[in-house]
Parts: sequence; structure tokens; C-alpha cells
Amino acid sequence: MVVRALLFDVFGTCVDWRSGVAREIAAAAARRGLADVDAAAAADAWRARYAPQLETVRSGARPWTDLDTLHREALDQIAGSCGLDALTGADRDSLTGAWHRLDPWPDTVEGLARLRAGYVVAPVSNGHIALIVGMARRAGIVWDAVLGAEIAGTYKPRPEVYLRSAAALGLPPGACMMVAAHAPDLVAAAGCGMRTAFVHRPREHGPGQTTDLSPPDGVDVAAADLIDLAERLGC
Amino acid sequence: MVVRALLFDVFGTCVDWRSGVAREIAAAAARRGLADVDAAAAADAWRARYAPQLETVRSGARPWTDLDTLHREALDQIAGSCGLDALTGADRDSLTGAWHRLDPWPDTVEGLARLRAGYVVAPVSNGHIALIVGMARRAGIVWDAVLGAEIAGTYKPRPEVYLRSAAALGLPPGACMMVAAHAPDLVAAAGCGMRTAFVHRPREHGPGQTTDLSPPDGVDVAAADLIDLAERLGC
Repeated sequence: MVVRALLFDVFGTCVDWRSGVAREIAAAAARRGLADVDAAAAADAWRARYAPQLETVRSGARPWTDLDTLHREALDQIAGSCGLDALTGADRDSLTGAWHRLDPWPDTVEGLARLRAGYVVAPVSNGHIALIVGMARRAGIVWDAVLGAEIAGTYKPRPEVYLRSAAALGLPPGACMMVAAHAPDLVAAAGCGMRTAFVHRPREHGPGQTTDLSPPDGVDVAAADLIDLAERLGC
Repeated sequence: MVVRALLFDVFGTCVDWRSGVAREIAAAAARRGLADVDAAAAADAWRARYAPQLETVRSGARPWTDLDTLHREALDQIAGSCGLDALTGADRDSLTGAWHRLDPWPDTVEGLARLRAGYVVAPVSNGHIALIVGMARRAGIVWDAVLGAEIAGTYKPRPEVYLRSAAALGLPPGACMMVAAHAPDLVAAAGCGMRTAFVHRPREHGPGQTTDLSPPDGVDVAAADLIDLAERLGC
């Protein structure tokens, strides 16, 4: 089956969440005169709360809840251990917006623009529509539509997210290729019948990264970055 | 409240459905050797089935059903009276795709591009995501997200469609301006708390148009076209 659409993971695959979140944590801490805050470690601690927070929705324990709410709750959970207890509620609300203001990797804007010339391109992210729209406008990314968790009402890697996104484009899963830097996302997409492309993001977790350094078994394409993916797909 | 997003009706406001549909009806009729088909009248007859078809979903009589299905059913309803009985099922399936292949009005692409520099721009159309994506890619339109009927699970002018679309952008209705060439759409949006802009499309229904020739009472802006709207909004 011919691939018509490329569906993208966003956090880590298209944008550098760790640097962006750490930058805003450092700025928020400085505004409150907090010394001894390891902003990168705090970003990691915040992200470590991501999967358990998503699971509260995936499991059905609570109804659809967007990432702003889940991130804000997670920030309260890690503030004490990260030296951020002095941040006010308003500080924390503002800092939660850091997840809307992440920078793309250096190849992302050009790579996506080239890929869009040959394929429908859409995020299939756990980020909600407002977050993805704000991020894309800030970064200069053009998407054909914003698909993913919000339209499915649950979070990846639940199969509904992939299947609902393909259906929204009027395509069978086999006409879609999921593009991600993380094995679980690609394995879940393949389980739904999608093609898969792995993108290497060896600095997503900082200089000591030990995960996601090689593609999972069975991917259709493995690319160094999104420009390399465009080359490999003939765009 | 400052307006952050412009939400657009699409059929009639951004694209010329009548000419595009008539063109494809004429071509389909010619391929079957059908004489005496008035393609413009058939396009009008097809469109006249639009509101009653939407109502089957709006009323709750049937679950969410996309426009391809509703248009395909409507084509069967009007084929006999329009001299199109000889079109096969496959002909009719293909012709239904005409609604994905409509041309923008001459000002639409430039106007939307200028407006997008100052505002989030998104369709709040009764067209489903696949239809809007295909139309936009073909026309060279860039949307920030595709909102509207599909994400709300019902059709305009039900208030859920406007309210769900604003919520998807993380905005209160008052920070959104609905842009349309039709009074009922603007009246419904205003009833949800949105600002409104009327765009004149005096040829939407062909040379004898008698409706939608002037803005409804109470609109915030009335514009000659989308470039004029950009001028009026300072874009």
C-alpha cells in the first residue's frame, strides 16, 4: 500500500523538550532567587511524571484531561524534591506553558517542509491541539491537521490514538507512516497496521542518554533526522 | 477581549463550491454521454439537500456521519430529477469527491496567509478533516489546525461546534472571530459569544443570487473579501 501520510510524534522527535523546559525552570527559579536548582534534573524529574500522569487517563480512572492539567499536577509533585517549593501557583501555571514553547531540533522545520511536499504531515502527539498549534506557530512548523490524543480522547500508546488519527485523514492505517524517536510509539503504531520510521534523537535526554539509541526491530525506515528522512523518502 | 483566532466557514466563504461541483458533474455526465444535464442546476439541487442531510445528524436521529456519506446519499436523491440516473455507483463515489476539490476564491489564499500572520486561523466547517485537508493542500491554503464539525461530532449551526472549536484552541469564545458569508453561521457563533466577520460572496449561488447580499445585523466587521478582511484587521 502506498504511504500517503506521515504522522509525527512531537516531544523529543520534532522538538527538544529537555532544553526548553530546563531553560524556563532556570528562569523561574532565578526570578524567585532560588539557588541550588538543577534545572536539567528538574526537567527530567518533571518528564518522569509524564507516563504515570498519562496512565490516569489511559486506564480510564479519569476522563480526558489535557497535558496542561497533567503537567501542572506533575509540577506540584516534583517541586519539593527539586527545590522549587517557593514557586507560587501563578509561577507554576506560567512555567507549565513551557511545554508549548519548545524549540524544534535544527533539522525539523526544513525536514517537515520537504516532507509536506510529498505527504500529508500531521502530529499524532499526546499534546493537545492548543499546545501543538502554539508550538508550531512559534517554531514555523506547518501541519496539514492536528491529530493525536485530543481527537481520540486518550493517550498514546493506546491504539485508539493511531486508528482515530488515520481515520480522520480518511486513510487505512497501512497508508500512514508513524515517525518517532521512541520504540514504544513505533511498536504501537505498527501493531495498528501502520508503517514506521525511526528518527535518531541521541540528545533528547541530554549528554548521558542510554535509551532510544537504535531503532526497534522491524521499522521500515531509520533516519538520522528529518532532513535525512526526507532524502530517504525522495522528498 | 482581544481576538486571537479567526475561525472560517469554508464552503462558499473560502471556496467556490458551485462552480467546482458543476464542473465535475458536467464531466461525469459527458463521460456517460448524457445530454441535457444542466450541471449548475444539478449542483444547486445537490446543495439543496445539504441542510436536510445535516439535520439527520444534528437532530440525533443518526450518529456522527461525515459529509462524504451525506453527499453521496444526497446525490442518489437528486440523480433522477437531474438526468444523472445513468451514473454508476462508482461514478457517484468519484463525483462525491468533487466536494474535496473545490477552488478557492481569487482572494482566499493571499487573504488567509496575511491573516495567519496575525491570528491563529482554522476552519470551523461542516467538512470533515480529510475533506478539508485535501482541499487545503490542493488550493495552497495553510491552516493552523482543522477544527469544526468532526471534532464536535455534530454539525453547524449547533453551538457545540463553535464551543468545541474555541476550546480546542484553549480560548474563550470571545477571543475567537467567526468569518462567514452566511448569516445563520454568524448568528449562531455570536450566540456562543464569538465575534463575527461577514464576507461578501455575491456569486456563491451564481449570477442570480438573492441571499447573503448584505451582512446580518450586529456583525463586528463586514469585508468585501478575505484580503479586505486582512486590511481591516491590520494584517
